[in-house]
Amino acid sequence: MIKAGIVGGTGYTGVELLRLLATHPGVELAVITSRSEAGKAVADMFPNLRGRVSLPFSAPDSESLQACDVVFFATPNGTAMGMVPELLDAGVRVIDLAADFRLKDPALWQQWYGMAHTCPGLLAEAVYGLPEMNREALQQARLVACPGCYPTAVQLGFLPLLEQGLVDAGRLIADVKSGVSGAGRKAATGFLLAECSESLKAYAVAGHRHMPEIKQGLAVASGSAIGLVFVPHLAPMIRGIHATLYAILQETETDLQAVFEQRFAAEAFVDVMPFGSHPETRSVRGANVCRIALHRPPDSNMIVILSVIDNLVKGAAGQAVQNMNLMFGLKETSGLEAIALLP
Amino acid sequence: MIKAGIVGGTGYTGVELLRLLATHPGVELAVITSRSEAGKAVADMFPNLRGRVSLPFSAPDSESLQACDVVFFATPNGTAMGMVPELLDAGVRVIDLAADFRLKDPALWQQWYGMAHTCPGLLAEAVYGLPEMNREALQQARLVACPGCYPTAVQLGFLPLLEQGLVDAGRLIADVKSGVSGAGRKAATGFLLAECSESLKAYAVAGHRHMPEIKQGLAVASGSAIGLVFVPHLAPMIRGIHATLYAILQETETDLQAVFEQRFAAEAFVDVMPFGSHPETRSVRGANVCRIALHRPPDSNMIVILSVIDNLVKGAAGQAVQNMNLMFGLKETSGLEAIALLP
Amino acid sequence: MIKAGIVGGTGYTGVELLRLLATHPGVELAVITSRSEAGKAVADMFPNLRGRVSLPFSAPDSESLQACDVVFFATPNGTAMGMVPELLDAGVRVIDLAADFRLKDPALWQQWYGMAHTCPGLLAEAVYGLPEMNREALQQARLVACPGCYPTAVQLGFLPLLEQGLVDAGRLIADVKSGVSGAGRKAATGFLLAECSESLKAYAVAGHRHMPEIKQGLAVASGSAIGLVFVPHLAPMIRGIHATLYAILQETETDLQAVFEQRFAAEAFVDVMPFGSHPETRSVRGANVCRIALHRPPDSNMIVILSVIDNLVKGAAGQAVQNMNLMFGLKETSGLEAIALLP
Amino acid sequence: MIKAGIVGGTGYTGVELLRLLATHPGVELAVITSRSEAGKAVADMFPNLRGRVSLPFSAPDSESLQACDVVFFATPNGTAMGMVPELLDAGVRVIDLAADFRLKDPALWQQWYGMAHTCPGLLAEAVYGLPEMNREALQQARLVACPGCYPTAVQLGFLPLLEQGLVDAGRLIADVKSGVSGAGRKAATGFLLAECSESLKAYAVAGHRHMPEIKQGLAVASGSAIGLVFVPHLAPMIRGIHATLYAILQETETDLQAVFEQRFAAEAFVDVMPFGSHPETRSVRGANVCRIALHRPPDSNMIVILSVIDNLVKGAAGQAVQNMNLMFGLKETSGLEAIALLP
Repeated sequence: MIKAGIVGGTGYTGVELLRLLATHPGVELAVITSRSEAGKAVADMFPNLRGRVSLPFSAPDSESLQACDVVFFATPNGTAMGMVPELLDAGVRVIDLAADFRLKDPALWQQWYGMAHTCPGLLAEAVYGLPEMNREALQQARLVACPGCYPTAVQLGFLPLLEQGLVDAGRLIADVKSGVSGAGRKAATGFLLAECSESLKAYAVAGHRHMPEIKQGLAVASGSAIGLVFVPHLAPMIRGIHATLYAILQETETDLQAVFEQRFAAEAFVDVMPFGSHPETRSVRGANVCRIALHRPPDSNMIVILSVIDNLVKGAAGQAVQNMNLMFGLKETSGLEAIALLP
Repeated sequence: MIKAGIVGGTGYTGVELLRLLATHPGVELAVITSRSEAGKAVADMFPNLRGRVSLPFSAPDSESLQACDVVFFATPNGTAMGMVPELLDAGVRVIDLAADFRLKDPALWQQWYGMAHTCPGLLAEAVYGLPEMNREALQQARLVACPGCYPTAVQLGFLPLLEQGLVDAGRLIADVKSGVSGAGRKAATGFLLAECSESLKAYAVAGHRHMPEIKQGLAVASGSAIGLVFVPHLAPMIRGIHATLYAILQETETDLQAVFEQRFAAEAFVDVMPFGSHPETRSVRGANVCRIALHRPPDSNMIVILSVIDNLVKGAAGQAVQNMNLMFGLKETSGLEAIALLP
Repeated sequence: MIKAGIVGGTGYTGVELLRLLATHPGVELAVITSRSEAGKAVADMFPNLRGRVSLPFSAPDSESLQACDVVFFATPNGTAMGMVPELLDAGVRVIDLAADFRLKDPALWQQWYGMAHTCPGLLAEAVYGLPEMNREALQQARLVACPGCYPTAVQLGFLPLLEQGLVDAGRLIADVKSGVSGAGRKAATGFLLAECSESLKAYAVAGHRHMPEIKQGLAVASGSAIGLVFVPHLAPMIRGIHATLYAILQETETDLQAVFEQRFAAEAFVDVMPFGSHPETRSVRGANVCRIALHRPPDSNMIVILSVIDNLVKGAAGQAVQNMNLMFGLKETSGLEAIALLP
Repeated sequence: MIKAGIVGGTGYTGVELLRLLATHPGVELAVITSRSEAGKAVADMFPNLRGRVSLPFSAPDSESLQACDVVFFATPNGTAMGMVPELLDAGVRVIDLAADFRLKDPALWQQWYGMAHTCPGLLAEAVYGLPEMNREALQQARLVACPGCYPTAVQLGFLPLLEQGLVDAGRLIADVKSGVSGAGRKAATGFLLAECSESLKAYAVAGHRHMPEIKQGLAVASGSAIGLVFVPHLAPMIRGIHATLYAILQETETDLQAVFEQRFAAEAFVDVMPFGSHPETRSVRGANVCRIALHRPPDSNMIVILSVIDNLVKGAAGQAVQNMNLMFGLKETSGLEAIALLP
């Protein structure tokens, strides 16, 4: 059994990790920390875990974390980088669900996250945890940077096209809609039900932190610089991301459906739907799946790619578990077999 | 492996059964019928099942159903009773999720369901599938009548009190709120999002079909006639039942919390929360659990019991699987370990 | 034109008052205060008011408030009582939407609101602003205490029965469901969309601040002490209160429907629906109406009353405007003619 | 008083027209027809109208309709064209909220709506009812074709840019999100709350009926052919359209904000928000307003326009009333002063 620790388990990625790890056949939950809630039973905060997780929150403490085989960080940006070096030195493997190790360039990190990076030396080693791009590296990784939710949906949708140079990499558009759990479990007026139910809006059109992450990943896939217009929207629902992706085809002869089907043929967690389908976010609710469908709109040289995930699963905690499975040589689908909840 | 068939798999209890059975370690899905959708892949109707259930719908056919060990009926009321006798004769065990075998009195059935019962001779044999009441009988049952969603939440909440004669059985009140999936997957104006979102209403105050079922079960528990005012409400959410139950205490000395905790101590799927708690329906979303909490409102001789379930799981498909586990000697929790999806 | 001021306009009752007063033909909005937002345009916080309300928030200041004919307090409990005496001395009439002047007994106020009352001498003079009970007194009032949202729905539903002694006043039950805007516009984790959407729960069963207010009002109506079990619930919607009221009939001969129809025949804002109807909260969304329907559940000596309001309109700002109309001799319906938004 | 009739008042545009006309100071509601509901009181179907609209539905009948000054058609596509010629001959003015008279080319109409046009001779005369484009023509019109909801939001967002040739008219993108009331009040499985709540999806990417209408209008504005990729989405809310519009700038020197502000300076119902704003659909809920905001995403030669309306008001019934006001020389804002309901 893999002994797993979680640092910062009071947010939505934390409770989702708990939900997944509590029923994972190869994992023993050893410790879950929260400075503010130390001593409180996890199940008192998250009643869905009553009778299933008996651990209390504990104050972060090096000894108990170093006794783990793997530690997940479900913390605000900037927390993990302060604790990771010590854990790695102690031989613990680390999976960070925050942004600390996602960007390779520490200057870019500082620009978007507003603080200096405290262990830039680890950025080169950190593996970007998108298994569909980096499976082999993940199998050897000590330190994994789990992708953000938007970047997961957007990159999986564009990857096959950019890898094969089928679209203009300099003029991509991602119009993405997210449920509000993506904003985390923080008390903020703007995410009250009375504020954001029965309404929809765009936000951060001038620049969102996930944009450099997306561009970095797509640049690797395409081998060229990426031009991207990225418009995130807040949709009145709890979970789900729907990415509507627009790209200009370089030529229109290629069987694009075949390209996607072949690219993801061996992937357990990417579902290429029939051409012209319309994936619904509910079809992945609670499941570690990305469903993708292609469209060729009339009278246009564009391709439209629809890509949906559950932001808390394939966009966060599920992907983290998938990465753990790879790092420890478990079956990649272990603990991730749940079917989406519909209706 | 138990070979399982489902008759009528196009509704919400059908897809929920599929979700549960597809990951059940002891079950092989053998056949799923739908007269209207015969030939269509199940996953084409329910995209959450893509890659997980490869069966197509087939027309109902005696041979394939009789080759099953167990057949679930997820059909409209009145369908199962036409097919069950033949299946039982063929040695197939039957679990009906509709109302056909819930009421012991065929006259009462006719009164509430508007048609004559075609196999009243089976009503005595049919076991009412509330394991917390009838576990032993279920282990021997050929034919199980799964309780309705409201009756599950209401009966579990009142049971300990009535079994011990602690409340006035003649003056019970059940004010119950249900998500709209309880109405099924039928095209009806009243259940459109634009009609029932952002609104709440009571319905069927003059008489709801689940009332005689509740009274029948509670009468067995109490050994006396039941008086019940039952007011169901439609709440603007997909899943969940919240029963708010009111009863008049016969005396106020008993430790009621202890009564409930002892009554359900051995039950895997009933969670008695600390006294004074407020269970949320989301704490059981997707899970086969009933959570119960007790309150003694100020200046009153009443007890208020709060009881929540997911109407499609503990209120339908999950309970059906729990019954199957009992009937076939499997571990009662097999296939039902999923933790509720929160948020 | 009546010059109106609003103290504390940054919450939901504040913006709702602005919405109603901005189109009221007899009112001029003179000042709206907010200590925290002073200088900011009201329409920058509430974009629905863009182009309709040009006022900025200003710091609370005696002079500008004393220049008003009427001042509304849409402040947290305990704020108004510190400012009201001075305003009354200056000849300004006051309508408080908070709880400061609702309870006649200052000891009870202190018990439920946790602070000493600073002007108990005004409690006797303050008129409880339920026009259907106190219309004549309101026409002369200097100081009006607007009822809470729950108390409005519950009292209007029980009033005719208690006034005529038709039910047992000692054993009333109010099972009430509210949208989340009732909790106000404060950043609190529990009211995030991701926390309270797709879920329903009871809360404060051990005692809610609106209980003494309800009992006080009903005791006046009935002339006897009130026994009340009051269970509020949080429903996953923005606006709306649905009160489901239970009472034991003293006798069953009276034509209860006629009692209600006669009681409210002259009321513009109470709609007695046909016997056996099921009012929906959406039928009053945005409108200053209470809709009521009666039921006699089978096999019972109870009456069930269903009463719905929009908690922000008839339960708060709309009722405040109705009171203002009465105090200033305007037509009672002035500025309140909007029809509910459906769907 | 203008005598107004409504043909087909049982859908959402019908009830919204009733809500608006019932409080319009210059209109008398004379007749509302519904073949299926003839004899039933309108307020029995739409309880928000109780006490406000006393009319019953009547069977469509030439005489009563011809006695009206104006008749609104809130009917399925293809109904109006069968009745309009006779009404015009009788001197009645007609406002069609369906698609019958929106497209100037009858062949295009047949292609998209699947039936031959029965009065193509009226297409040239019919004025497209977008007052911000066609105010003068509307003031003289006998027959007005009200725009669809998507076309209203999209055209108002693109208009100033195309009129001045500031963007590439051949490569426009409209990624639009709509609440489900846009689908109308018809019993269809896909629009059940249990199906489309807590989910988001694109639909009709291969071609939506509103696309030719948008292109026709924009071609007039730009004077050149339009290339448009139009991707509609279904969002889990009742009302609201959020159009996210992408266009490639021909040059980047122009003060685009000034262009929009000047273009709409005299428009009562178009609100150009500050540059970089993020309009919310709730800011126009129930109000006849289109709010627009501009963005220049980083590292791109594109402009992003955000445009929100209430699909049932500025996208349907409100715009119809605005057109009526123009046709009859009333104040353009008459009956349309309501402020959006927020929260």
